[in-house]
Amino acid sequence: MRKIRALTIGELNQVLGGELSGDSSSPIRGIARLEDANAGDLAFVGSPKMLSLADAHPEATLIVYPDFPDRVSPLIRVANPMAAFFKALSLLYPQRELETPSIHPSVILGKGTSLGENVYLGPNVVIGRFCQLGNNIRIEANTVIADDVTVGDDTVIACNVSIRNDTVIGKRVVVHPGVVLGADGFGFQNIDGVNHKIPQLGHVQLEDDVEIGANTAIDRATIGATIIEKGVKIDNLVQIGHNCVIGSQTVIAGQTGIAGSSLIGKGVIIGGQVGIADHVVVGDQAILAAQSGVMGKVPPKSVLWGVPARSHSRVLREIAVIRQLPELAKKIRKIENKLSEFFSESEE
Amino acid sequence: MRKIRALTIGELNQVLGGELSGDSSSPIRGIARLEDANAGDLAFVGSPKMLSLADAHPEATLIVYPDFPDRVSPLIRVANPMAAFFKALSLLYPQRELETPSIHPSVILGKGTSLGENVYLGPNVVIGRFCQLGNNIRIEANTVIADDVTVGDDTVIACNVSIRNDTVIGKRVVVHPGVVLGADGFGFQNIDGVNHKIPQLGHVQLEDDVEIGANTAIDRATIGATIIEKGVKIDNLVQIGHNCVIGSQTVIAGQTGIAGSSLIGKGVIIGGQVGIADHVVVGDQAILAAQSGVMGKVPPKSVLWGVPARSHSRVLREIAVIRQLPELAKKIRKIENKLSEFFSESEE
Amino acid sequence: MRKIRALTIGELNQVLGGELSGDSSSPIRGIARLEDANAGDLAFVGSPKMLSLADAHPEATLIVYPDFPDRVSPLIRVANPMAAFFKALSLLYPQRELETPSIHPSVILGKGTSLGENVYLGPNVVIGRFCQLGNNIRIEANTVIADDVTVGDDTVIACNVSIRNDTVIGKRVVVHPGVVLGADGFGFQNIDGVNHKIPQLGHVQLEDDVEIGANTAIDRATIGATIIEKGVKIDNLVQIGHNCVIGSQTVIAGQTGIAGSSLIGKGVIIGGQVGIADHVVVGDQAILAAQSGVMGKVPPKSVLWGVPARSHSRVLREIAVIRQLPELAKKIRKIENKLSEFFSESEE
Repeated sequence: MRKIRALTIGELNQVLGGELSGDSSSPIRGIARLEDANAGDLAFVGSPKMLSLADAHPEATLIVYPDFPDRVSPLIRVANPMAAFFKALSLLYPQRELETPSIHPSVILGKGTSLGENVYLGPNVVIGRFCQLGNNIRIEANTVIADDVTVGDDTVIACNVSIRNDTVIGKRVVVHPGVVLGADGFGFQNIDGVNHKIPQLGHVQLEDDVEIGANTAIDRATIGATIIEKGVKIDNLVQIGHNCVIGSQTVIAGQTGIAGSSLIGKGVIIGGQVGIADHVVVGDQAILAAQSGVMGKVPPKSVLWGVPARSHSRVLREIAVIRQLPELAKKIRKIENKLSEFFSESEE
Repeated sequence: MRKIRALTIGELNQVLGGELSGDSSSPIRGIARLEDANAGDLAFVGSPKMLSLADAHPEATLIVYPDFPDRVSPLIRVANPMAAFFKALSLLYPQRELETPSIHPSVILGKGTSLGENVYLGPNVVIGRFCQLGNNIRIEANTVIADDVTVGDDTVIACNVSIRNDTVIGKRVVVHPGVVLGADGFGFQNIDGVNHKIPQLGHVQLEDDVEIGANTAIDRATIGATIIEKGVKIDNLVQIGHNCVIGSQTVIAGQTGIAGSSLIGKGVIIGGQVGIADHVVVGDQAILAAQSGVMGKVPPKSVLWGVPARSHSRVLREIAVIRQLPELAKKIRKIENKLSEFFSESEE
Repeated sequence: MRKIRALTIGELNQVLGGELSGDSSSPIRGIARLEDANAGDLAFVGSPKMLSLADAHPEATLIVYPDFPDRVSPLIRVANPMAAFFKALSLLYPQRELETPSIHPSVILGKGTSLGENVYLGPNVVIGRFCQLGNNIRIEANTVIADDVTVGDDTVIACNVSIRNDTVIGKRVVVHPGVVLGADGFGFQNIDGVNHKIPQLGHVQLEDDVEIGANTAIDRATIGATIIEKGVKIDNLVQIGHNCVIGSQTVIAGQTGIAGSSLIGKGVIIGGQVGIADHVVVGDQAILAAQSGVMGKVPPKSVLWGVPARSHSRVLREIAVIRQLPELAKKIRKIENKLSEFFSESEE
């Protein structure tokens, strides 16, 4: 990894223009989140809410809000600690300048494919025929794009990505390594004990400002489009089936799977490892807690959990009772005994 | 994506040879599933079962069965609507002709590797030593195949696939992007607190007509073979452990994981996100519902669900009772109170 | 796959120097685990514990411990059957010699990158700027490594791997195909209904002797490092979030997901498809059974299961009662009826 630039806290403060307290010659050894910060690490304290955490790290070098209390280790007081911290970060670890936009000589471009201005195509990128790539696009090494794919302006596609034919990608989209867009949907018909493939003739559409995590797979539609609407953010290793529509600004955490033809609303929050069956409708702004199994309609703004998914507060109550179950079963046995004793006595 | 070919419904019908009703000059704007079809979209209605769905889309242009009722929007009546629809589709979106079978100049072939007739190897494909590739094989860009791999006739291996040494692949197999075949099984022995690797010396075998979804991983056997039998269809992001055998025509949905040495029968249906422990035996034609956790023997034709997996109908009954649990617990408390009251009274 | 070398059991025993019983001219047709071994297959019996399994495979050719009982099929008796079996294996399937350490002409090396002695870089490997690679490293075809990455001696990185900038990799590490190290952590802030990306500025660190399974994704830290400590072994399709620390010698089975900032202890065993929430602390040597959902602190050496994860033995008792729930509910109804009958009678 990059080495930190040698700076003292005094030199850093000359750039940040804050109010320094402590030994100005202290070197900065690294940067850290406040919860991980040891002696020599630079961290920031954004507000009094983080004060007790700061107290637990007395040796850290801190960028703090103006009336942060004095301490022995060096401090820089500024009006906006987070902004100053990010400025320090870019100073201590200057970003490598990106390679000049250019087409590496090893790139393969199919016939009929057009490129916008200021495009970077890394080594061994393979692009099919009749694709349309916009301006300021970055496509990294060893990524493969098939025929008739459209990519909007300012989109970044990382290395080792596979994009199948007819995929439509919007502007400012980010696709992380290992992603597969537009592989065949999982459709087979069993006739007399033999699986026959149902042709998968649709495509995948990513709207503007979508981000797709590493090794996630989004299948093409059987007919029509699998649509990921504007601003959707999808984590790593997620599976999206054919003909799904994911509503705008929805967030999907890692390893969640959504089967074919499900319609997810706008602004939905889906936790990790959630499973959603096929043809399910999830209402806007619903929240699906991690590891839920969703099999039926989800009302807007509802908060669900469990398998099968049901009201989160309901599940909490059920869990509380399940934990008492062994004792509950004992109680019932006791009651039964008492009663049978009583009734046999009273029958005597 | 590809643009639709400009055709009116009248021109389309000249090719399909059906019976047209409605305005023959209507342009076809797109194709769609019936449930998504709007004005200008072409869809099909295969049988009277789809009639109410067709009624919900009154503006769609439809290919329909002969005695489908009249409507304002254009119709083409034919004997076999699905077949006519697929014919229309190939007319409206003519498939790009595949690249001529050929070996791209950037391909790396190891010594002792033999190729059949009519083989397509895309850019940057890397194939190891002593491999045997049959006829009519398509291997797409940036896929890597190690030493001593066999690939049967008419098999398609997509881009960015990794196939490790000694893998055996049958005929008419389809491998989607990002798949890893034959990585080491997960075997470690902890000796005095340190994990030692158990050598993984076997291989992976895919029989004829197998299909493997995007980013799925199938591990090599410790010794012997991990076997995916004829006609098995595996979805995306599935994990198959070392020495598993998946019986013929079995279907496995996305994100399911099967640990080492489990034997899955023939014609089994496995839902998404199912977990199957190691050394489990699953009988022929069993059905494992999504998100099940299977830890023991599964009888043939059984239908299981839940963690741990048990009879599907049993789980439904248990869930019904679990939903009543909070009320049930209250009832028991009431009974206890009533009884203790009664007995204390009667003791008085 | 490789063909077995033609050897008779007599010829094999000349190399192993054991005591042969049975027909020395019997050919060896394959190697197998004892549970899979048929006529002509060579397997081994390490101790009397495996005797009944050996009896179930009477036609197998066996390497056995000295006082293994006689049988009709050929036997080789040796002091250490497992060691002899592995020797036989390397004789029957001689390992292909690896390609001579070398840099393939198609490799792209960024400026400022240094290589140690005896490095193998396969075809189409792309390595960024200012990387430091040690001695005896093997990086396979089509793998992409970004800027400022460090790789320690004797590490093997398989094909189609994506390693993002600033990743630090130790010695004797094994990375399987399709792995993504250092993609952005999943951090977004929703402001007025729009998701804004939180910059991900940290990196990933793999210590010595780590092994990472196929298609696994480990995210970079937001600030600081996501750390996989010495000797950790991670299976396929696992997701590790930003800023996690996985303690030394911990083992994580397939498809498990760990959300951001969780701290996993040393020597922990995590089953398949486990989900661990963010900011969770798991104590040393804890065991988390497959498909558990961990949301809170896990004490050292505890054995947990279920969603939410709780004591394994407790879960077993709960499951036992859950299975009786339908009957339990009936019992309660009976008791209620009996009581209401009784009380109404006694009120009469």
